[in-house]
Amino acid sequence: MSKVFLDEKYIPDRWYNILADLPMPMDPPISPFTGKPVTFDEMKALFPPQLIEQEMSTQRWIDIPEKVMEVMRLWRPTPLIRAERFEKALGVKSKIYFKYEGTSPAGSHKPNTAVAQAYYNKINGINRLTTETGAGQWGSALSVACKMLEMQCRVFMVKVSFNQKPYRKSFMRMFDAEVIPSPSEFTNAGREILKQNPESNGSLGLAISEAVEEAAGRDDTNYALGSVLNHVVLHQTVIGLETKKQFELINDYPDKIFASCGGGSNFGGIAIPFIKDKLEGKDVEAIAVEPASCPTLTKGRFAYDYGDVAKLTPIMKMYTLGHDFEPPAIHAGGLRYHGESPIVSHLYHEGIIDAQNVHQSDIFKYGIMFAQTEGIVPAPESAHAIAAAAMEAENNMEEGKEKSILFCLSGHGFFDMSAYDAYFDGKLEDYEYPEEAIRKSLENLPNV
Amino acid sequence: MSKVFLDEKYIPDRWYNILADLPMPMDPPISPFTGKPVTFDEMKALFPPQLIEQEMSTQRWIDIPEKVMEVMRLWRPTPLIRAERFEKALGVKSKIYFKYEGTSPAGSHKPNTAVAQAYYNKINGINRLTTETGAGQWGSALSVACKMLEMQCRVFMVKVSFNQKPYRKSFMRMFDAEVIPSPSEFTNAGREILKQNPESNGSLGLAISEAVEEAAGRDDTNYALGSVLNHVVLHQTVIGLETKKQFELINDYPDKIFASCGGGSNFGGIAIPFIKDKLEGKDVEAIAVEPASCPTLTKGRFAYDYGDVAKLTPIMKMYTLGHDFEPPAIHAGGLRYHGESPIVSHLYHEGIIDAQNVHQSDIFKYGIMFAQTEGIVPAPESAHAIAAAAMEAENNMEEGKEKSILFCLSGHGFFDMSAYDAYFDGKLEDYEYPEEAIRKSLENLPNV
Repeated sequence: MSKVFLDEKYIPDRWYNILADLPMPMDPPISPFTGKPVTFDEMKALFPPQLIEQEMSTQRWIDIPEKVMEVMRLWRPTPLIRAERFEKALGVKSKIYFKYEGTSPAGSHKPNTAVAQAYYNKINGINRLTTETGAGQWGSALSVACKMLEMQCRVFMVKVSFNQKPYRKSFMRMFDAEVIPSPSEFTNAGREILKQNPESNGSLGLAISEAVEEAAGRDDTNYALGSVLNHVVLHQTVIGLETKKQFELINDYPDKIFASCGGGSNFGGIAIPFIKDKLEGKDVEAIAVEPASCPTLTKGRFAYDYGDVAKLTPIMKMYTLGHDFEPPAIHAGGLRYHGESPIVSHLYHEGIIDAQNVHQSDIFKYGIMFAQTEGIVPAPESAHAIAAAAMEAENNMEEGKEKSILFCLSGHGFFDMSAYDAYFDGKLEDYEYPEEAIRKSLENLPNV
Repeated sequence: MSKVFLDEKYIPDRWYNILADLPMPMDPPISPFTGKPVTFDEMKALFPPQLIEQEMSTQRWIDIPEKVMEVMRLWRPTPLIRAERFEKALGVKSKIYFKYEGTSPAGSHKPNTAVAQAYYNKINGINRLTTETGAGQWGSALSVACKMLEMQCRVFMVKVSFNQKPYRKSFMRMFDAEVIPSPSEFTNAGREILKQNPESNGSLGLAISEAVEEAAGRDDTNYALGSVLNHVVLHQTVIGLETKKQFELINDYPDKIFASCGGGSNFGGIAIPFIKDKLEGKDVEAIAVEPASCPTLTKGRFAYDYGDVAKLTPIMKMYTLGHDFEPPAIHAGGLRYHGESPIVSHLYHEGIIDAQNVHQSDIFKYGIMFAQTEGIVPAPESAHAIAAAAMEAENNMEEGKEKSILFCLSGHGFFDMSAYDAYFDGKLEDYEYPEEAIRKSLENLPNV
């Protein structure tokens, strides 16, 4: 039995909130305007009350509304699959399992939170959301969620992606979203950058600034973020909760869990329900996998930093490479955010989870081997986890060990074929971000 | 319960061959060289013996080799899904179910036969296959199958698609296939066309000629076809066999079955196992759905015709629009082949199945409504069936009837976003092929 399907009755009806079980409390987010911890009222310009409560809550289990369950049933439960043909190609004896989130409407794990965020806005009378998107995964997810809940959606898409990935734009258009290349003339943040450089290609940090500025300035509009924040990580725990049930059914349990890590919601989503077990004494390791060219956890600093370029978001205690950080153009694998989920950062700082970075030659090598054996073209983001899981299995083999390895295949790569073309054409090089440059971009951290 | 998953033990281990149960025998294929029924030996230049046997067999059940089962387990069984949100958006009371074949590695039903064909070649010592592809679905499927069975694959891709759909090419490249724009300099057929018109965009009929010519001329290479032939339709019956089991589990049975129909393997695959029931007296209707701009069954003639432009394939008794027929450029929905599976043609001629054609405005209208409610972007080909099923449900509603409607969602549309863009940009028009033009293209039928 290589595929483990779950009955719909096993879709989790509660999210697991690890803030209830942390051995040490987390530092609060700080307002960029007052320099003090952000208040509930200050967050109301961007988010509906239930999401702000979830952001701050230490309640262990939070019920998932029935309407959110109804939409999630379109694609959940997602399968847990044993990658037997991949194991054979690697020549390893460890078992490699993957949880596949690419069966969702947007092709990734992102709709798990997009639907919940849209829902809480909707019941508060907000019928319009703004957001940013880089490669397009999150913009696609929010577009789908808004359409399913009959809301409007405006997506600020980093201009270089807008031009390079026309089919992501087409996808969002299919779900009636409005897609705006960023920097745009719609916001002060955008106009400011365009004045300095009319040819600017944009960045994720800037697109966030544009989306936040618009949401803050309009009563009918709120903002939605696809990763980083506590409530986003919370919503993604359905992934790990389902996976635990699936392992129960096959009488196995993972020794090591790998997940790619940009903002942290994918990693948190699959790993955190297992970390609950670890905190209760269970022997399991969770490893966040990031690009060598954007090594936030492995080479960044644990410090307060801004979430965006225009310094409009709360200042968060997290691993960061500095809010001005931009990975080099040669980097094709996504996961480009300068910061990291405060929850994931905290877990790493406390030594509860581990992290590693991988080079893109390995990402594409193992990603293609996975596609050729398992028949699923992975998103380059997800291929970070594939590479790390494969190398772990190879190491086990050398050491004569047989382990159970789990990774999250967070999405498919059907909209990322140009990155694979670049790899086949020999246009990608490995790039390790120089320590000196990181030190430099960390000089601009806020004084908190 | 809106999704019906099957345990892996229910993947069919035998194909159902309707030639065993036909009330009237089919007319044999004729050799274009001798003018007599094609012999086993004549087919050996292109196909391995087991496939030729299957092409001619009247044995009711044919065992599926374990190696083929092993690869199919990567994506089979596929889900049967009740489209409840789509029903609600349509405002109908009939139940609409769909069998979703888009979860396969190539994103369509095509790998069901690609793997079987590759396997039978492999065990006969053939390690290289050629084929043609139009939109890219079949070329993708054969590329995957060849890689899974460690064989080489050369795909002649209609040049206009080669240029318009770069990511289909990237996909095939990912599975180590060689993709050649057709017409090419590799074959007499290709060189002949290029001499007449160096700017030729190619056609499916010509790409078939190129692939057949190369396979016929090389001992190490065979040919594989993605639709039309009896053995291809046979391999696709796993779709309908699984679907019947799934209906059993939910104690329902479809009144009407819709499937889009180009060469006929998708329609035959889902419908034929139900037609077995119909021949035994069960009340079920199967309707082949084709484009109004390529109306093979609904406006073509039941006659012997060539399968390709260069007249290299056997002459088959089928519904045809004439082997020179080409749908207009304005047509964006695929299903462009001039002919039709002889089995499907025979069933239609005998009045056992029905057919209808649909306009592309309806295809895209209902296809988008389906995506927005069910969260799956359909291939435009598959959207033909969606449109027909939706219109049936609407008609039932008007007539006060509640039926069980089934359609086959043969593939996803992630590689077809440009067709949706054309629709949104208002570039698509409805086009009904003029009767006079069809009469004209039917003047060149062979004398058999």
